[in-house]
Amino acid sequence: MPSPTIDGTQRGYVIPIGGAEEKIDNPEILSKFVELCGGKDAVITIIPTASQLDDTGTRYQQIFEEIGVKKAHSLPISERVDAQNEEYVKILEQSTGIFVTGGNQLRLSTILGGTPIAKTIRQLNAQGVHYAGTSAGAAIVSQHMITGGSTGIVPTEDGVNLAPGMGLINTIVLDQHFNQRNRLSRLLSAVSYNPFLIGVGLDEDTAAFITPDNEFTVVGSGAVTVVDPSNIEYSSMAEARTGDALTLLNLKVHILASGARYNITDRKAFTA
Amino acid sequence: MPSPTIDGTQRGYVIPIGGAEEKIDNPEILSKFVELCGGKDAVITIIPTASQLDDTGTRYQQIFEEIGVKKAHSLPISERVDAQNEEYVKILEQSTGIFVTGGNQLRLSTILGGTPIAKTIRQLNAQGVHYAGTSAGAAIVSQHMITGGSTGIVPTEDGVNLAPGMGLINTIVLDQHFNQRNRLSRLLSAVSYNPFLIGVGLDEDTAAFITPDNEFTVVGSGAVTVVDPSNIEYSSMAEARTGDALTLLNLKVHILASGARYNITDRKAFTA
Repeated sequence: MPSPTIDGTQRGYVIPIGGAEEKIDNPEILSKFVELCGGKDAVITIIPTASQLDDTGTRYQQIFEEIGVKKAHSLPISERVDAQNEEYVKILEQSTGIFVTGGNQLRLSTILGGTPIAKTIRQLNAQGVHYAGTSAGAAIVSQHMITGGSTGIVPTEDGVNLAPGMGLINTIVLDQHFNQRNRLSRLLSAVSYNPFLIGVGLDEDTAAFITPDNEFTVVGSGAVTVVDPSNIEYSSMAEARTGDALTLLNLKVHILASGARYNITDRKAFTA
Repeated sequence: MPSPTIDGTQRGYVIPIGGAEEKIDNPEILSKFVELCGGKDAVITIIPTASQLDDTGTRYQQIFEEIGVKKAHSLPISERVDAQNEEYVKILEQSTGIFVTGGNQLRLSTILGGTPIAKTIRQLNAQGVHYAGTSAGAAIVSQHMITGGSTGIVPTEDGVNLAPGMGLINTIVLDQHFNQRNRLSRLLSAVSYNPFLIGVGLDEDTAAFITPDNEFTVVGSGAVTVVDPSNIEYSSMAEARTGDALTLLNLKVHILASGARYNITDRKAFTA
């Protein structure tokens, strides 16, 4: 569950990005994030923990500086002990925006889970600080986070692996590199485990800008695929044996390109 | 459009198979087809035209003989002139079942299209002779036949190539090797061109046994994915530029494993 908001405070945006967002020529997604965070007054803190490359944090720092911010800095959190560093927490608390890079989402959950840094991210977002994350940084947004699974279209009983995520959003399960890596199968497997979830598949260079009112607008060059299982009439998930194809009747699916919107609370899609 | 039936005559089944059906150990799909065609009294005519391998026809002949039929024979039709051979038409007319092999569906449409063989297949099916086709032999069943397109999930303006098929069924567009080759993108592109179509994606070793009453049952080890666009609220297909991601709101999707049924006329899915 997201942290509770203090009375009268508006939450920050949550912006999952499907990975491989444009960084140089026309960084539409990153620019819109910076704009939300205050543009030239923005203070962006980068969490590069998912990545095992040394320069991921500094690279994003340069990108944000080129877009034009007051300050962008990367917190070198690569072990659990770093995520308990009170200095880092203080730096984080100065942010108008938090950006979590790609890499391995299990590094994010195993290193940040239950630490002061994770708690602060959740609290700051509830207090109005915007959160954007790409690839692994998008996956971790879900309360029920996809960590792996089968590729293809058709779901199976063992088609997805889930782990607890950071839970900035609790009714949707996110997947990234969606069209590029053919991940409908694992998203369908996830939503059919428990149809209270809405499945949201983000293509590369594509983001869902989720407002404090729980509605998102699509930004970027690809599409966001929404799988709404709330009207499922039948699912064979509980009876299926490992490897069996599943029967799932009456899924609702929306494909949303740039500018299209989706209201998560009402489960309703709108055109651009 | 399918050939009109003569008053009182029941049409034959139409059985598209998604390719790579089990042929030796437990040939469930082929055995059910043989059973429909009369079992030990079945006379199966094989059309190997889609394939460019010399032994495709004789191989299926052996498979049907092993299952147990009265007669199985292959018509060596590899050019348009063969498809006008009156001898072949006479042999075809003795069939209780027609089986069309895999290969290239454009060979089927270019070689058989408009010939006495194609006309006879359509008439015989209207008169009660059963038709089964695998892979290319399944594709050709559609009036609007998929010949190629992009792989992945998300549809695009140029995401599918269509050609006129044999039209044994006119309200559905079929695709094969569906899960194995990630073909949702092209199926969604096809149904969004004109939402009167129902998209039916057949996995390998999986068949839709379509009854004369326009309802099908799934047989085989994979799934059949049904995409029903009839309630689409909005499609950006007409405005999209080449390569653009599309917005499609409110698709209905069913995943149907073995035993599940779909009524094409009523657009309604049922569990096994």
